[in-house]
Amino acid sequence: MSSSLKLIGSAQFRSFRNLWMLEELGLAYTHVPARPHSEEANAANPLGKIPTLVDGEFTMNESAAINTYLGDRYGGTSGLVPVPGTFERGRYEQVVTMLQSELDAQGLWIHRKHEALGHIFGTIPDAVTHAKSHSAKVVKVLADTIAASGGPYLLGPGFSAADIMCVHCLNWADAIGWVDEWHESNAGLKQYAELCRSREAYVRAKQLP
Amino acid sequence: MSSSLKLIGSAQFRSFRNLWMLEELGLAYTHVPARPHSEEANAANPLGKIPTLVDGEFTMNESAAINTYLGDRYGGTSGLVPVPGTFERGRYEQVVTMLQSELDAQGLWIHRKHEALGHIFGTIPDAVTHAKSHSAKVVKVLADTIAASGGPYLLGPGFSAADIMCVHCLNWADAIGWVDEWHESNAGLKQYAELCRSREAYVRAKQLP
Repeated sequence: MSSSLKLIGSAQFRSFRNLWMLEELGLAYTHVPARPHSEEANAANPLGKIPTLVDGEFTMNESAAINTYLGDRYGGTSGLVPVPGTFERGRYEQVVTMLQSELDAQGLWIHRKHEALGHIFGTIPDAVTHAKSHSAKVVKVLADTIAASGGPYLLGPGFSAADIMCVHCLNWADAIGWVDEWHESNAGLKQYAELCRSREAYVRAKQLP
Repeated sequence: MSSSLKLIGSAQFRSFRNLWMLEELGLAYTHVPARPHSEEANAANPLGKIPTLVDGEFTMNESAAINTYLGDRYGGTSGLVPVPGTFERGRYEQVVTMLQSELDAQGLWIHRKHEALGHIFGTIPDAVTHAKSHSAKVVKVLADTIAASGGPYLLGPGFSAADIMCVHCLNWADAIGWVDEWHESNAGLKQYAELCRSREAYVRAKQLP
């Protein structure tokens, strides 16, 4: 059923989330390490973004959506994406949405847009300052979520695609120098991230272009 | 199974998405029309946001996540949230994620944060200008998605929770004066929105506080 999976998008960007997921699932796939707004990206997504997943005749975009789809379709009993209709799936949906809307979109992407890529989108230090302080609040909620779940993962004892989203965001935040103070104020966050990063699938995905 | 559903959040905010969904599903529920950062909102969500869904012993936040959960748990054969693991579900996940990340988070919420609520978050006209022009690109993708699906809805012949997200965003955009030029440049978008707004469940939800 999974003989023709292809993931378009360089591991240097959000596509890493899907490459890690594919490695967790142990699926065979081909990888096209395209950059945003490259010829391959523009052909696959009208917004020129990456990643895109091609699954036979079906093509889809959006990294979080792709991981949920992969888990539902190919996850079997892995628990990477919890069974639909359960409370656990509700928690998964909530955490992934919060990571995406609050930490990625209102935090990290504001930095990318109005600082790192300010030459394209306009440099706006006030917007980035707000995004950073908002991100710290969201990270506290994430640390509390891990504690409330009983840990060691966001949903409890089992590693899930929500952790993939979270650790990718933490890596991104680390790369722009936002993480150190989060570690200081959120006991366990660093240990959580290191536990996730020790997984074989993570290590394999990190070696991809 | 659904005897104790409660939705916390005023219909004047994103909670409308869930009230409309609950009406589509024909479920019995109680409604607490709380505003953001009210006592009820702060008690239900550490970020003080609405909505929150209470389903017996289970509580969850995030409007898009709540609708997906409701569809999976109580949607039966309604098709409001497509069957997990199908290509159609993949399309649903993609469209909802794009609406949330691109149109809501990078468009409408930037306006709310840095114009409508500028007295709280800081007024930043340049950030809002970029958000508006980005939103126009996303809306074109949405209009093309409806056309490519064969219409009349985002996923094709069947109304879904993706349309709830979309029309709520269009209503929000209309309220801040962004929509007229989108209608001009995207044939069919106005007709699509009006078709969705003619649904009995929408009309009932619009009457809620």
